[in-house]
Amino acid sequence: MAEHRPRDDAAKPILIVGSVAFDSVETPHGRADMALGGSASYAGIAASYFAQPRVVGIVGDDFEDHHMRKLSDHGVDVRGIERADGKTFHWKGRYHENMKDRDTLETSLNVFQRFDPVIPEAYRKTQYVLLGNIDPALQLSVLDQAGGGAQFVGMDTMNFWINTARDPLIEVLKRIDLLFINDEEAMQLADEWSVAAAAERLLRMGPKFVVIKRGEHGAVLFGPKLTLFVPAVLLSNVVDPTGAGDTFAGGFMGQLSRVGGLDRSALASALTWGTVMASFTVEAFSVDGICGLAPEAIADRRKTLIEMVRY
Amino acid sequence: MAEHRPRDDAAKPILIVGSVAFDSVETPHGRADMALGGSASYAGIAASYFAQPRVVGIVGDDFEDHHMRKLSDHGVDVRGIERADGKTFHWKGRYHENMKDRDTLETSLNVFQRFDPVIPEAYRKTQYVLLGNIDPALQLSVLDQAGGGAQFVGMDTMNFWINTARDPLIEVLKRIDLLFINDEEAMQLADEWSVAAAAERLLRMGPKFVVIKRGEHGAVLFGPKLTLFVPAVLLSNVVDPTGAGDTFAGGFMGQLSRVGGLDRSALASALTWGTVMASFTVEAFSVDGICGLAPEAIADRRKTLIEMVRY
Repeated sequence: MAEHRPRDDAAKPILIVGSVAFDSVETPHGRADMALGGSASYAGIAASYFAQPRVVGIVGDDFEDHHMRKLSDHGVDVRGIERADGKTFHWKGRYHENMKDRDTLETSLNVFQRFDPVIPEAYRKTQYVLLGNIDPALQLSVLDQAGGGAQFVGMDTMNFWINTARDPLIEVLKRIDLLFINDEEAMQLADEWSVAAAAERLLRMGPKFVVIKRGEHGAVLFGPKLTLFVPAVLLSNVVDPTGAGDTFAGGFMGQLSRVGGLDRSALASALTWGTVMASFTVEAFSVDGICGLAPEAIADRRKTLIEMVRY
Repeated sequence: MAEHRPRDDAAKPILIVGSVAFDSVETPHGRADMALGGSASYAGIAASYFAQPRVVGIVGDDFEDHHMRKLSDHGVDVRGIERADGKTFHWKGRYHENMKDRDTLETSLNVFQRFDPVIPEAYRKTQYVLLGNIDPALQLSVLDQAGGGAQFVGMDTMNFWINTARDPLIEVLKRIDLLFINDEEAMQLADEWSVAAAAERLLRMGPKFVVIKRGEHGAVLFGPKLTLFVPAVLLSNVVDPTGAGDTFAGGFMGQLSRVGGLDRSALASALTWGTVMASFTVEAFSVDGICGLAPEAIADRRKTLIEMVRY
């Protein structure tokens, strides 16, 4: 599938640390069993259309070559994925009819429980770093190893860490450039009742930028004297929302590293490409929606998206 | 307050039929008792910034001059508001902490129960007509009286009518140009699980355009080969969401009649002005947020809104 990669050899590297997992997902429209998932898988493949992803994660001995090839065929550097004795992280969930609410049926951390990311020497000067949605203590460890050489660090988090690891999470916030977070979690972390007030408070906690993800309602980026909004792509057929946020973050960071700079236009382009990549993810189970995409298909969809807000 | 009206004497008239009511609202931030409300009040005042609203409604003998003046001071033609013996329609509700969900504590239809709109002869050739959120049977009666001379008819509706008066509602849909409806109600009426699929089906039921209102997430207009999205204004301080949808519809229809035409640019401008008007409504109780606004304040806020989606 190498022919699908729009990157060239000069593509900038981007370090992504997160989970590589198997997901078993049931929705009202179908199911997938033990399919490739995890924040670093989605973010890595999404970023591969823009940059050279270097993934750091951990898998078990049940993680087969064809799983790894889904990543490496997209040019993802997988040398940082540790193979450990035991089983790969497995998440099982069921989505409700509205395709938003979901019940977790099983979370087997397996080898992920022992995940202690070691950033390979060759990765330590990577300029763009994406801390996937993992324990803030591990995110801090990654920053200790690779933060010094980084030019731009983005992080993702979720309600579980806000509830159980608030203090280390706040430490991470002080050391990053951009926080990806969904609207409910932003309000929870900031203790505010509006997205705008939450973003303002979160910006005071450290990051230069906050991107509030609102699922099918789009995303908003807040920064110094800057608010950018991008709607989600309108889809008639959502198959599986799993991984949309990770894909968004991977596409966003990949595009940001590709264009360089942090001006309004660079950030806006990152927002739109990230949004478009996420729209492909939700149209299929697992990472199937973002595997082997033609660059033209991605660009066409972005054109449609931008056309919606051209007044 | 006549000095606040940006309209001139050449402003085009727009016929608005709906409720004129007293609302008693409790929110976590405060309360208002027996304050001016109702779909036609919000839509009429909002439209007054763009056009000459002619309101048809019914009030009781407890509706005082100062209430009526809130409308007439904005240039709303109130000759179509019937005064009947009895009390004015009264709605009482309480918003939850999230400022979205609400409980209805009391609905006293009072004189509104006998509402049988008679469109004054002088109003019957009005080119722009907004059918507020009332019984579809009454909307049909308005169309019988004033539909012939109308160039463009917009209608609003809600889940109550979808559940209790589906057949007449579907008859109205065949005779209008544009439907205003919120996302959940659109999916309910169309029996679809996505906004895009719902809009497609609703367009096949009659209207040329469907505007799906998504509250704090903005609004989407669907038409022939046309999709336009406008985000909501980001607000830190929402005081009372009551009337936001009616205000949006009033501003939208007012601006549409002011600019004339139905091309992309006319529709996009109606969407943005309607959105901006709604943002003022939710910042105060009752119609206070949209009373006596300076045209510059409205224009400034629209500029901020559009800036968010300039990539």
